[in-house]
Amino acid sequence: MKLILVRHGESLWNRENRFTGWTDVDLTQKGVNEAKRCGRLLSKYDITFDITYTSYLRRAIKTAFYISEAATRLWTPVVKAWQLNERHYGALQGLNKEETIAEYGVEKVKEWRRSYNTRPPLVDIDDKRYPIYDNMYAGIPEKFIPRGESLKDTSERFLPYYKSIIEAELQKGQNVLIAAHGNSLRSLIMYLENLSQEAVVSREIPTGTPLIYDLAGDMTVIKSYTLSNKKQ
Amino acid sequence: MKLILVRHGESLWNRENRFTGWTDVDLTQKGVNEAKRCGRLLSKYDITFDITYTSYLRRAIKTAFYISEAATRLWTPVVKAWQLNERHYGALQGLNKEETIAEYGVEKVKEWRRSYNTRPPLVDIDDKRYPIYDNMYAGIPEKFIPRGESLKDTSERFLPYYKSIIEAELQKGQNVLIAAHGNSLRSLIMYLENLSQEAVVSREIPTGTPLIYDLAGDMTVIKSYTLSNKKQ
Repeated sequence: MKLILVRHGESLWNRENRFTGWTDVDLTQKGVNEAKRCGRLLSKYDITFDITYTSYLRRAIKTAFYISEAATRLWTPVVKAWQLNERHYGALQGLNKEETIAEYGVEKVKEWRRSYNTRPPLVDIDDKRYPIYDNMYAGIPEKFIPRGESLKDTSERFLPYYKSIIEAELQKGQNVLIAAHGNSLRSLIMYLENLSQEAVVSREIPTGTPLIYDLAGDMTVIKSYTLSNKKQ
Repeated sequence: MKLILVRHGESLWNRENRFTGWTDVDLTQKGVNEAKRCGRLLSKYDITFDITYTSYLRRAIKTAFYISEAATRLWTPVVKAWQLNERHYGALQGLNKEETIAEYGVEKVKEWRRSYNTRPPLVDIDDKRYPIYDNMYAGIPEKFIPRGESLKDTSERFLPYYKSIIEAELQKGQNVLIAAHGNSLRSLIMYLENLSQEAVVSREIPTGTPLIYDLAGDMTVIKSYTLSNKKQ
């Protein structure tokens, strides 16, 4: 079975260098093109997927759509789950990264971005960035709705979903595509590759490029690889 | 509960005036724009949907996507089911309608298009238009794969799906969007409005315009209506 991970391409706030988290910003045209290229690349290598998992956020959902369209797999099922959402960046959401460094100092921002356990400043309960006010999350118990997450928090919501729902599909012999976000994918890669907390926080995941894991029946990794555009 | 029916907008073969059926042709840019306008119209009237059903065919799937995007409902679930596919037009698929009239005569073509029980000429079992050769339908038992369908045949695969799967969602109080095709929607409208065979075959369904049914708890129709773009 193959597990194909794709991090969404450029979003409006990537381009503006802002902390995004659960803010539901759109892809740029460049981001759309990255997704389409990813779909064509999967086709070129004859790598198919039987089911796709993505988050509730449009930049990941649209990435899944444009990959499927370019790979002529639009008819395959797509499951959207909030558990795959990006790490919630708390009160940093919307702030420009340079300005945040100027205000809080480079060390503090580095800790928020690159520590495994540290949460960002949480949003207040009356802050509109608290997702409890968003109709999208109305079906989710309040205790699961974050006001700001560490990478560990993100992992603790995504991995149980992966192990119970996504692994069950893989166990059936299905190839699975996951179109998600830098930090939700980091938490999965940490599990798949058995990375330390130190290693995972500095692991960079390229956008719009499929990262593929061939899995054994016991869900351990046989090999992992990316695809190159250079194949004729 | 609201049931919202949308027929996909213009496809490449609509424009070329060909019989399409299960041929998986794409939307034109006009068809994409029709879907987007439909999504904006639903938003303008504050009509939301909780789940979407569509066929295996990209012109319907993309219609569902662009409606959801324009209505900012991309995060809601989308279920793709072959039972919602367009009527299979057998050996007519791919033929130009004018040329077919020139060859077979206007009466014969009218019968194929507008009779409830008459099947078109079936495709041969080695014809690539027989969907059994298409990987998309590999999971479906051979006995369900058509070589050409009457509107009655289409109804006999779609209505059981509607009554078992889609009505179950409506019964939960969910609003349901169905993005599908002229003839699969006709068969549903026949059931909802209790139309005769004579009435259903001449019922025209506009493209890209939502047709809305308010349903009672027993799934009967309280009222049906379309939305106008004229609302300020």
